[in-house]
Amino acid sequence: MNIDVTIIGTGNMGRALATRTIAAGKSLQVLARSTETAATFAAELGSSITSGNTAEAPAGQIVILALPFDAAKEYVSAQGAALDSKIVIDISNPVDFSTFDSLTTVAGSSAAEEISALTSATVVKAFNTTFAGPLTAGSAEGTPLDVFVAGEESARNTVASFITAAGMRPIEVGALHHARELEGFQLLVMAMQVNPALPDFNWGTALKIVG
Amino acid sequence: MNIDVTIIGTGNMGRALATRTIAAGKSLQVLARSTETAATFAAELGSSITSGNTAEAPAGQIVILALPFDAAKEYVSAQGAALDSKIVIDISNPVDFSTFDSLTTVAGSSAAEEISALTSATVVKAFNTTFAGPLTAGSAEGTPLDVFVAGEESARNTVASFITAAGMRPIEVGALHHARELEGFQLLVMAMQVNPALPDFNWGTALKIVG
Repeated sequence: MNIDVTIIGTGNMGRALATRTIAAGKSLQVLARSTETAATFAAELGSSITSGNTAEAPAGQIVILALPFDAAKEYVSAQGAALDSKIVIDISNPVDFSTFDSLTTVAGSSAAEEISALTSATVVKAFNTTFAGPLTAGSAEGTPLDVFVAGEESARNTVASFITAAGMRPIEVGALHHARELEGFQLLVMAMQVNPALPDFNWGTALKIVG
Repeated sequence: MNIDVTIIGTGNMGRALATRTIAAGKSLQVLARSTETAATFAAELGSSITSGNTAEAPAGQIVILALPFDAAKEYVSAQGAALDSKIVIDISNPVDFSTFDSLTTVAGSSAAEEISALTSATVVKAFNTTFAGPLTAGSAEGTPLDVFVAGEESARNTVASFITAAGMRPIEVGALHHARELEGFQLLVMAMQVNPALPDFNWGTALKIVG
């Protein structure tokens, strides 16, 4: 089975990423902890989508971890050699969700780097600054969504091509350690969404470079 | 002499900030190392602008350091008690400009926090994500420029009111330590402007939250 993209997880971000993957004309596999949940999710998205359980090896060349940070670490640890030669996309934000005021990673590191340390796959950071609503649409205020990408150059280019095919604008920001800055800024953007003093920000916003 | 805003520095950012300060209807003093440079700068901007030398105490309630990081540190150290009870705005980006790949601050700190440690003034981070061109205009693609502000709440609110009066949109992101995330992300944005692979980014862009 030759699959372009495997998405791990069927939450809001998994659904948004699946929508974009289908829009890109890529073949898609969806894996979840519950085989039934994955099958229902795949059926809703289209009959050509395959599905399965996270216990099985992912088929996609690109594997997108549509998971929270801790679950993402567990997943790559459990997969071991099944991820060899894959490109794994980490979308997570290691935010302390009880305060929205700090990261759960230590200064000078990032979720993406921590995940990378647990796997032989090439980890790329992307989609951590895109909320599910705009990501489903692929656009914000009528222009393609900006998707920031950090990672090793060849893998990063592959992910950028996927993003372009999916109708969005990839912005490659360099090596994987730049996930630190992407995750750091998204802490601020997430905190805006829950700040009662900023009623215009309600999880439908997008971060964009204009001009 | 009761002055609203003193700007230290007559470079591109000083000029852009002076333009916005005048647009806000605020009284403005400009200080430079060269008295003559400051006087010429002030005369170009309007006859009501006062000017002087950085050796004298700034008159403004708000003092904007339109200076690079190292010069900003030198300035506040030299001023000492002259900055007591002032709000000092740090706009700097502690970027390694030889590589555009790292910050010159250590992980877990920020230029704003380092400057704050050198002065009795209340330091607020703002305008580090706004390039001079869009800042002069106060807008990007027809909408008010987003200006991210970090600092102690009361001083931050004062700066936010100034930004609103100057025709832009303040986004208050919390305490001064959040300058870390603002400076970190701007490293990426600056690197984009000098990246030959991204020819659309040429120092005229703006960072914006849309939607």
